[in-house]
Amino acid sequence: MKPQLVQGTRDFSSAEVLKRQYIFDTLRNIFIRFGYMPLETPAMEALETLTGKYGDEGDQLLFKILNNGLDQSEKKDKARADFEELLNGKNVKGISERALRYDLTVPFARYVVMNRNDIAFPFKRYQIQAVWRGDKPQRGRYREFYQCDIDVIGSDSLLYEAELVQIYDQAFHALNIDVIIRINNRKILEGIAIEAGFPDKFGTITVAIDKLDKIGWDGVAKELESKGISGKSFDIIKKIVASATMSELKNCFSTFNSIAQKGLEELETVFRFLDGYQAFNKIQLDFTLARGLSYYTGCIFEVVADISAPGQEAVKMGSIGGGGRYDNLTGVFGWDGNSGVGISFGADRIYDVLLQLDRFDQVPENTTKLFFMAFDEASLAYAFKIVQKCRAAGINSDIYPEAAKFQKQMKYADRRKFARVVIVGENEMNSGVLTVKNMESGEQKGMTVEEILREFAV
Amino acid sequence: MKPQLVQGTRDFSSAEVLKRQYIFDTLRNIFIRFGYMPLETPAMEALETLTGKYGDEGDQLLFKILNNGLDQSEKKDKARADFEELLNGKNVKGISERALRYDLTVPFARYVVMNRNDIAFPFKRYQIQAVWRGDKPQRGRYREFYQCDIDVIGSDSLLYEAELVQIYDQAFHALNIDVIIRINNRKILEGIAIEAGFPDKFGTITVAIDKLDKIGWDGVAKELESKGISGKSFDIIKKIVASATMSELKNCFSTFNSIAQKGLEELETVFRFLDGYQAFNKIQLDFTLARGLSYYTGCIFEVVADISAPGQEAVKMGSIGGGGRYDNLTGVFGWDGNSGVGISFGADRIYDVLLQLDRFDQVPENTTKLFFMAFDEASLAYAFKIVQKCRAAGINSDIYPEAAKFQKQMKYADRRKFARVVIVGENEMNSGVLTVKNMESGEQKGMTVEEILREFAV
Repeated sequence: MKPQLVQGTRDFSSAEVLKRQYIFDTLRNIFIRFGYMPLETPAMEALETLTGKYGDEGDQLLFKILNNGLDQSEKKDKARADFEELLNGKNVKGISERALRYDLTVPFARYVVMNRNDIAFPFKRYQIQAVWRGDKPQRGRYREFYQCDIDVIGSDSLLYEAELVQIYDQAFHALNIDVIIRINNRKILEGIAIEAGFPDKFGTITVAIDKLDKIGWDGVAKELESKGISGKSFDIIKKIVASATMSELKNCFSTFNSIAQKGLEELETVFRFLDGYQAFNKIQLDFTLARGLSYYTGCIFEVVADISAPGQEAVKMGSIGGGGRYDNLTGVFGWDGNSGVGISFGADRIYDVLLQLDRFDQVPENTTKLFFMAFDEASLAYAFKIVQKCRAAGINSDIYPEAAKFQKQMKYADRRKFARVVIVGENEMNSGVLTVKNMESGEQKGMTVEEILREFAV
Repeated sequence: MKPQLVQGTRDFSSAEVLKRQYIFDTLRNIFIRFGYMPLETPAMEALETLTGKYGDEGDQLLFKILNNGLDQSEKKDKARADFEELLNGKNVKGISERALRYDLTVPFARYVVMNRNDIAFPFKRYQIQAVWRGDKPQRGRYREFYQCDIDVIGSDSLLYEAELVQIYDQAFHALNIDVIIRINNRKILEGIAIEAGFPDKFGTITVAIDKLDKIGWDGVAKELESKGISGKSFDIIKKIVASATMSELKNCFSTFNSIAQKGLEELETVFRFLDGYQAFNKIQLDFTLARGLSYYTGCIFEVVADISAPGQEAVKMGSIGGGGRYDNLTGVFGWDGNSGVGISFGADRIYDVLLQLDRFDQVPENTTKLFFMAFDEASLAYAFKIVQKCRAAGINSDIYPEAAKFQKQMKYADRRKFARVVIVGENEMNSGVLTVKNMESGEQKGMTVEEILREFAV
C-alpha cells in the first residue's frame, strides 16, 4: 500500500517544528510574564460535552469516535438499532460517545466547572493545543490545527482587558510583526441600534457596518435602506461609527441610552488602565468591529497585520488574533454568572505571515552546531570521543556513523544544513589539530579540541 | 448536565503541566545535543495505515473515527450495508476511514516512506506526542498518554547503539533518577536456542528466561522441562544466561553458532564505542532481557530505576524506557531494507517516579515571581503601572484586579502559591517604598521600585 496523510492534516518536518516551537515559546513567555498558567485537556471529550455548543454546523463538523466493540456478537441487534437512530439524526450515543475537541473554550469551561472548588478565582490560564474540525480542507484551512488561547475567568475587572491588549502588543512585538489592535465594545454596537431607533435590528445594523471596509459607506447605506433603515437613522449610525475618539463618540449618544453609556464607561476604564502605556503597535478604536455576536458581551478585540508598516505592505491575511469579554462561559454546564475575558492567537496564520516576511531569522534550520566526519575506523573512534567531549560541554554535536567516503559524508552534511563540519582524518588525529569548515562561507581553519570547546561551548 | 472527563483521560493542571514540560524539555535538550531533530505527525491516520500493525488485539484497541455525513439521506442504504460489514468484522471503511494514532513508530515509518526523497539518511528524529489506545483504564494506564521516541533510520552502524545508551545515561542523570541500563542482543537469544540444541524453541526458551527475575532458576528449569528442554541443554542455557562478562559469554558459544557470533560481535562493537565513556548510571549486560520478540533484530535495551541507589529503595516501577535495533520498519509500507534503531522514554512512569522521589524541586509551583495587591482605586492604578515596569524588565508579575479587602487578596495569593507578594497601599504609594512579603518565611521588607527591579529582574 502507498501510505498517505489523512486529508486536511499535515506532518511537520524538523524545520517546521522548530519554527512552530519558536512561535509557541515566544507566546508562552509573554503569557507567563503576565501571570497566566498552563492547562492541558484531553483530545477526546464526551460527545454530549461538545454537542450543541457550536451550532448545527459545528455539530456536523465534530469528529466523532466510534465506540469500541460494536462487532461483539451479542450486541449486534442493539448496534443496528443504534445505527438507525444515528441515521435518523437522533441519538448517536450507541455508536459514538466521544468526539475530538473542536476548540479550547468548551473544554476550558468544562474544566473550570469540574474543578471549581480547587481553583482560585480569578483563574488565569493559557492553553496551546490542537483542535479538530471536519471542515472541507482548503488553502490555509486544516482539519487539525493548533489554537492558542488565554482567558481569565471569575472577575469582571476591566484591568484584564487592558492587560490583554498589552499581551497582544508585546507578543506581536516579540514575534516581530507590526500589527493593529482593534478594540470595540459589544454594548456600543447595541447602543448604536438603540440610538438609531431600531433596537430590534441590532444584528442587521452590525452585519452591515461590519462590511464597511469592503463595500464603503454607499454600500452600507444601500444595505441598511433595503432593511428599512435610512435618513436620520442612517446619519446617526454613520456619525457614531466614524467617530475617531472617545470624546467624539460620547457626543453621539443620548444620556438615556444606558447600554451605550455602559459601553462608553467600560472603554474609558480600559483606556484609563492603559494610560501612559508605551505601545509598540497601533491600538485603535474601531466601531465597525463585530466578531462573534452571540458570544461576547463587553469589549471585543481583533488583531491584523499593519500593512502600512515597513516591509509589510504585501501581507494579505485576515485577523491573526481576536477575543473579548463574555459573561456566561460556564452556564452551559450549569454554573451561571462567571464573567470572563480572553483572546486567542491564530498560530497557523502567524506562521504564514512570518514565513512571507522572512522573519524566522532567530530560528536555526538545524540545532546541531558541529558535525564530525572521519574516514577510517581509528579516526572514527577518535572523533566519536571528541563528539562526546563536545556534548558533555553542552555543544549540540553529531557525527557520521561510518568511515564513508568524503563526498558521501559532505553531501549528507550539505543536505542536513549543518553550519559547521569538523573533519577528522589520520593527519588530524596525529596532530590533534582538526579542520573546522564553515559551510556557509567555505572557510576552513585548524583548531585543537580545546579551542573547539572554548569557541563553541554555550 | 454534569460535565465529565472521558474515562481513561486526564486534565493536566498548571502544576502538572509545568512538571511534564520539565520532563519533556530535559529530554528534548539531550536529544538535540545528540543531533536528533523533531518530527510531528497528525493525530489522525488513515485507518489502513494503522490496521494490522499491532496484532489483532491492537486493531481492537484503535480509536476509529466515524465518517462524517453518514446521516445524509441519499447515503442511508449504503451506510446500513457498510455498517453490516463492520458488524461482520469485514470492511469498516464505509463507516470509518480514520483512526487516532496508536504509537509514534508507525506514523514515523509512514513519514519516512512518504518523504524518502527529501530525507537525508541516516535520519535522526525525536518525537514527543500523545497516543490513544482503547485499553481498559486502570491505575497507571490511560487511554491518552504521551510517548517520547527517538530513532535513527537508514544506517546499521553500531555507533548509534552506543549513542542511545549514552542518551539514556545522560537523560536520566539530567532527570536525577539513578537507573540501570540493561543491554542484550536478540541474536544472542537466538544463539542460546541453537547452542542448547533447540533452534525451533527460541520463543519458548526466551519466554522462560525472561521470567528468571520472578521465578528463579528452579522455576525456569521446571518450565523448560515441561517443554522438553532439560539436562545438558538446560545447563548450557543457564551457563550462558548467568555469564557476567563478554569474555565469559564468548566461551559459552561454539564458533560455528554464527548467529551467536554475530550477536557477540555486535555487542563488542557497541562496547568498543563506549570504551572510556564515564557513565553516570549502571550499564549492564542482561541475557534474560527479551522485549518485543518479533520486532527487534539486534541490540535491545531496557531501563529500570536502580533500587540500590540512595533514596530510591522504595521505587516500584517496571521499565521506564526501552528500545532496540530493527531491520524493516518501513517494509510494511513497501520499502524494504532500512535498518534502524530507537529507544523510547516512558514519560508517565518517569513522572510517577519523580513524584514519588520528590525530585521535581527544579520545577516551580507557580512561575509568577511577584504578586501585587492594592486597596483603593488610586493605588491600584499606581500598582498596575509598577507591574508593567516589572513585566517590561522580564519579571513574571501579576496583580489582583480590584481594590478588594486585604484578607480576600491574601487568601487568593496563598491559594495561587505566589512566592512573593508586593503590598501597595496609600502609604506605600506616597512614600514610594513598597512592602515586599516573602510568603514562605513571612518576612517583610520595604523596597523601592528600583530596588525591586534590581533584585528580581532576570
